[in-house]
Amino acid sequence: MQFLSDNAAAVHPAVWKVMMAADSADAPYDGDALSRELDAAFTALFGRECAALWVATGTAANCLALASMVPPHGAAVCHREAHIEMDEGGAPGFYLHGAKLLLAGGEQAKIAPDAVAAVIDPIRDGVHQVQPHAVSITQASEYGCVYRPGELSALAAFAKERGLGLHVDGARFANAAAFLDCAPAEACAGADALSFGFVKNGGMSAEAVVFFDPEAAHMIRFRRKRAGHLQSKGRFMAAQILAMLEDGLWLANARAANAAAAEIGAAAGGRLLHPVEANEVFLSCTAAERAALRGQGFGFYDWGDGAARLVTAWDARAEHVSALARAISAL
Amino acid sequence: MQFLSDNAAAVHPAVWKVMMAADSADAPYDGDALSRELDAAFTALFGRECAALWVATGTAANCLALASMVPPHGAAVCHREAHIEMDEGGAPGFYLHGAKLLLAGGEQAKIAPDAVAAVIDPIRDGVHQVQPHAVSITQASEYGCVYRPGELSALAAFAKERGLGLHVDGARFANAAAFLDCAPAEACAGADALSFGFVKNGGMSAEAVVFFDPEAAHMIRFRRKRAGHLQSKGRFMAAQILAMLEDGLWLANARAANAAAAEIGAAAGGRLLHPVEANEVFLSCTAAERAALRGQGFGFYDWGDGAARLVTAWDARAEHVSALARAISAL
Amino acid sequence: MQFLSDNAAAVHPAVWKVMMAADSADAPYDGDALSRELDAAFTALFGRECAALWVATGTAANCLALASMVPPHGAAVCHREAHIEMDEGGAPGFYLHGAKLLLAGGEQAKIAPDAVAAVIDPIRDGVHQVQPHAVSITQASEYGCVYRPGELSALAAFAKERGLGLHVDGARFANAAAFLDCAPAEACAGADALSFGFVKNGGMSAEAVVFFDPEAAHMIRFRRKRAGHLQSKGRFMAAQILAMLEDGLWLANARAANAAAAEIGAAAGGRLLHPVEANEVFLSCTAAERAALRGQGFGFYDWGDGAARLVTAWDARAEHVSALARAISAL
Amino acid sequence: MQFLSDNAAAVHPAVWKVMMAADSADAPYDGDALSRELDAAFTALFGRECAALWVATGTAANCLALASMVPPHGAAVCHREAHIEMDEGGAPGFYLHGAKLLLAGGEQAKIAPDAVAAVIDPIRDGVHQVQPHAVSITQASEYGCVYRPGELSALAAFAKERGLGLHVDGARFANAAAFLDCAPAEACAGADALSFGFVKNGGMSAEAVVFFDPEAAHMIRFRRKRAGHLQSKGRFMAAQILAMLEDGLWLANARAANAAAAEIGAAAGGRLLHPVEANEVFLSCTAAERAALRGQGFGFYDWGDGAARLVTAWDARAEHVSALARAISAL
Repeated sequence: MQFLSDNAAAVHPAVWKVMMAADSADAPYDGDALSRELDAAFTALFGRECAALWVATGTAANCLALASMVPPHGAAVCHREAHIEMDEGGAPGFYLHGAKLLLAGGEQAKIAPDAVAAVIDPIRDGVHQVQPHAVSITQASEYGCVYRPGELSALAAFAKERGLGLHVDGARFANAAAFLDCAPAEACAGADALSFGFVKNGGMSAEAVVFFDPEAAHMIRFRRKRAGHLQSKGRFMAAQILAMLEDGLWLANARAANAAAAEIGAAAGGRLLHPVEANEVFLSCTAAERAALRGQGFGFYDWGDGAARLVTAWDARAEHVSALARAISAL
Repeated sequence: MQFLSDNAAAVHPAVWKVMMAADSADAPYDGDALSRELDAAFTALFGRECAALWVATGTAANCLALASMVPPHGAAVCHREAHIEMDEGGAPGFYLHGAKLLLAGGEQAKIAPDAVAAVIDPIRDGVHQVQPHAVSITQASEYGCVYRPGELSALAAFAKERGLGLHVDGARFANAAAFLDCAPAEACAGADALSFGFVKNGGMSAEAVVFFDPEAAHMIRFRRKRAGHLQSKGRFMAAQILAMLEDGLWLANARAANAAAAEIGAAAGGRLLHPVEANEVFLSCTAAERAALRGQGFGFYDWGDGAARLVTAWDARAEHVSALARAISAL
Repeated sequence: MQFLSDNAAAVHPAVWKVMMAADSADAPYDGDALSRELDAAFTALFGRECAALWVATGTAANCLALASMVPPHGAAVCHREAHIEMDEGGAPGFYLHGAKLLLAGGEQAKIAPDAVAAVIDPIRDGVHQVQPHAVSITQASEYGCVYRPGELSALAAFAKERGLGLHVDGARFANAAAFLDCAPAEACAGADALSFGFVKNGGMSAEAVVFFDPEAAHMIRFRRKRAGHLQSKGRFMAAQILAMLEDGLWLANARAANAAAAEIGAAAGGRLLHPVEANEVFLSCTAAERAALRGQGFGFYDWGDGAARLVTAWDARAEHVSALARAISAL
Repeated sequence: MQFLSDNAAAVHPAVWKVMMAADSADAPYDGDALSRELDAAFTALFGRECAALWVATGTAANCLALASMVPPHGAAVCHREAHIEMDEGGAPGFYLHGAKLLLAGGEQAKIAPDAVAAVIDPIRDGVHQVQPHAVSITQASEYGCVYRPGELSALAAFAKERGLGLHVDGARFANAAAFLDCAPAEACAGADALSFGFVKNGGMSAEAVVFFDPEAAHMIRFRRKRAGHLQSKGRFMAAQILAMLEDGLWLANARAANAAAAEIGAAAGGRLLHPVEANEVFLSCTAAERAALRGQGFGFYDWGDGAARLVTAWDARAEHVSALARAISAL
């Protein structure tokens, strides 16, 4: 009964189906019929003109998106627990050719305009200090918390005022959108680029980088190739994404994962370290309690010394979820 | 009837099968059972200890392999028509942090020790000129020609004498090995690292970087992650590779592609610009002749003004191949 | 009466003299007689075999030194107020090809083993998080405080135990050594590389990167050239450094600057934010007090809202120093 | 009697004089009075608005200029014997973050529009091949030959038509301008940026990067700092440049060097491999002849097996020049 992560979950049958249907020779790279549908698919989804590129990982998606905003001598501001800072093996430094990440604080791994201001206001103008060029946030955040449309709009307005691009790491964008139950565009309101994650949500190996200024995508196509991310059988990448977007599968899967997390969260009660809004549950528990849970067959990560992180996936089995909820209640 | 490239061909059913069998949650990244089999699988194949990493593209494979040999202030020598020089969008410059490619000549897009020497001997020792650290060759070459074991050994001896690493871009290594009909290890004799291609030969999206010095792989694992190439559902990458290695599927597929090319090459006779050894045919033909072939439904690339490139894939249909051979004979 | 910084002070007459004496053609770059003396000069000074390279700025010196220790996918730990983090315009990201700086805390802008441990102990082993490869400290620190030999030895032992290189940014190494009044080697005990500053201390445009493992210098010679820092008339660089080392001029100048700071510090009394050990004085004072000082003709930088930074140079005029001391006493 | 290079020649007394006059504390970096004169000085010289930055080496100047034109995924076209390709230790790869140099041919180390076209016309549009963004030429060329204003205008028109920036490496721009005896602006007609060399022509350690679009300089100020090239006592850099520009010293020095080369060239007669237009003489001579010249006390570089390169500097002594001319005549 694994609640370690959603990142290794199964691939949804509908994704397999469209991938298999794509298995006849077509133009290589992103010249195939499916890849050429992507821009229109995201344009329809977000209700505004988009350009979208597939890549194999969220790390590549995030870094390519940021590369459209941050020059080598610049910086992006992110939360100090952001995935790009903590878990991408230094990829932003690689893709941005040495640009910096500036670290802001904030509850729930979310950042607000004043937290960004606290980081960038002390930066002296001029060449001695690295100047900010973008803000990167994670929707849902690394603690499974969701920016509300109003929070996003405030950040976007702040970013615009300061001349900063706004990037949304949407590794779990679907979970955030499902939680908000709003138009997809509202769940990333004001973003210039979105890393739209599918792998954690039923896909196999395709994420999308969505540019809300289609012009910005042009240069990134060169950067994607240069990073070795332009797969020759790109049709299988596009297939995954199109399958996920078809009939709202991305939302359905996210709702399933969120519901599982909510059930666990409800059982956790006062142990919760963060509100359960997406598909992650952080709960306070001792080493002995964690051992007890593991003894009952539950897999999850420790989160520091006194806590555990439990992640639900789109395919979480109801009986596993209920068993976990019961086990937590019984601690 | 497409002979444009092998890079967008279908995925072999056996690959699909193993991929689908891999679709239950396992450890993420390369901690899954299949990924952990890779080292042993290549060790068995090559009869010496290997460490192998999957990546999604040949570009990433080549660049990561070279990154184990070439520091940012160094250079690699390759043929002036090498894929890394001509077709990878500058990826070596990115992955190697600005290191150079030094370009050597040679018939059939192959390079010999004297061609490498001609490039590096004039380089003055010292800091003013970029010093070579590696040689990179392509097996089979960009013109579909195959290095014989003796040629490889001579290059390897030369490289060793000069303190250079030896990298083999094996995007079509299977076709070369099939042509040579020798032990796999002989087909890349003396290499320090091999980019072992599977995508053109029946795979979907997985290539292997094989290090013959397993120690060298350690640093490259960091570089792979940093390049955004560490997929979370890596089990599907490993599955493809293991499926291809199983029961010699990689060789069987390559033999099929080679046989198709041979049939076309035999029909081309005196038009051949290069011997047909792998699965590519370069033939001299006028624009009118190319138009005539296209008029009969054959797809292929022009190769400059007076030639055509035809590539056969593992799934080339016999009737298409025969039709093309007849059409060429009839020109 | 300027106490803004020591970085734009006059050039010492002895430096001018040796520079002018160097003005006859010699071998270019670092092949001249003076440049070839550097290794021996530092070897004599430190009592152990050294290799030394001149460069024009402390930024270049620091980054080249770190480049000998930190691979592109790695990190160096430094104080969060370290010059390399705060004031070098992102140069470490450039020279280290995207490697990270990990930020530690500590009083007086100094870091201790436990502060480094607090940063690196939580880093998970493996490729997802950037691994530390070096520690960089500043001697004297950015707050004008000096690491004692015992502190250095403890850090060096810690670094060695953890497999980390130790770099000392010695932009004001002379001031630290003068304060410690010990053998130069003790003032950077355990360092693998030292950026030995001369520009702030009477030089014009030459700093030295000193490698205590001479082998490490080899690769850095390539990096220096590649960074455009190999000047063709290098003899003028070496001349500055040799002039400073001659007869202990570097220490004499530093003592003069330190004495001036001590006089000011003594007058500041309880206003001092940090002990005055080198040539910088940080004192608490209101905006009105700062305005009053400026009204009397003293130039200096604000340090946040409620403090001022005053820096003395080797050529501080006694009457200016005394006047400032009196003015501060009278606040 | 050294004719090895002009790059280690003496510093002109007028340069020393202005440097020494600059030796009182002023604002650091480029905030001093002299540095703030540079834009105006070059604006006056070229008769159009310029922005100019000092740097210590031609390598840094060239690379910073190119960085204003070429993105990391792009390329610059230069002659295959260009200094940036052959002698800068890979600095363009470093400063341009992995961008490529594409190599064109041409007599006298000069390139013409058709040579550039021959390189870039075969480049397929799209992401697989690195796209050109700039052309870089050397004035005077690496063989001491000078682009005529008409040649420059033709190149500039071509570059503009193709959307390429035009960079002029003017390590010996003074020699070219002296030869052309035209307005300075004509000697670099159409350039977007000029690396204006002073070190070889009587300076000590200061070159200028001149941007004819002052906006372009903004970003490069960040890049200069980031490369460790923003010296704190920048006033000494500016002083050198202003001294050289004062009363046309730069042209007077260049004329002296050119005259010396002309005298030698006249003596060389039919041995000349290239016309002597600036201050370099390439002459055909056997190993025995070279030994004979060296036996008479002349220092110079071999240029391959059957030639010698002789370079005259601004301070070439008339008797040495005459002696060399006689010795060559007598061969």
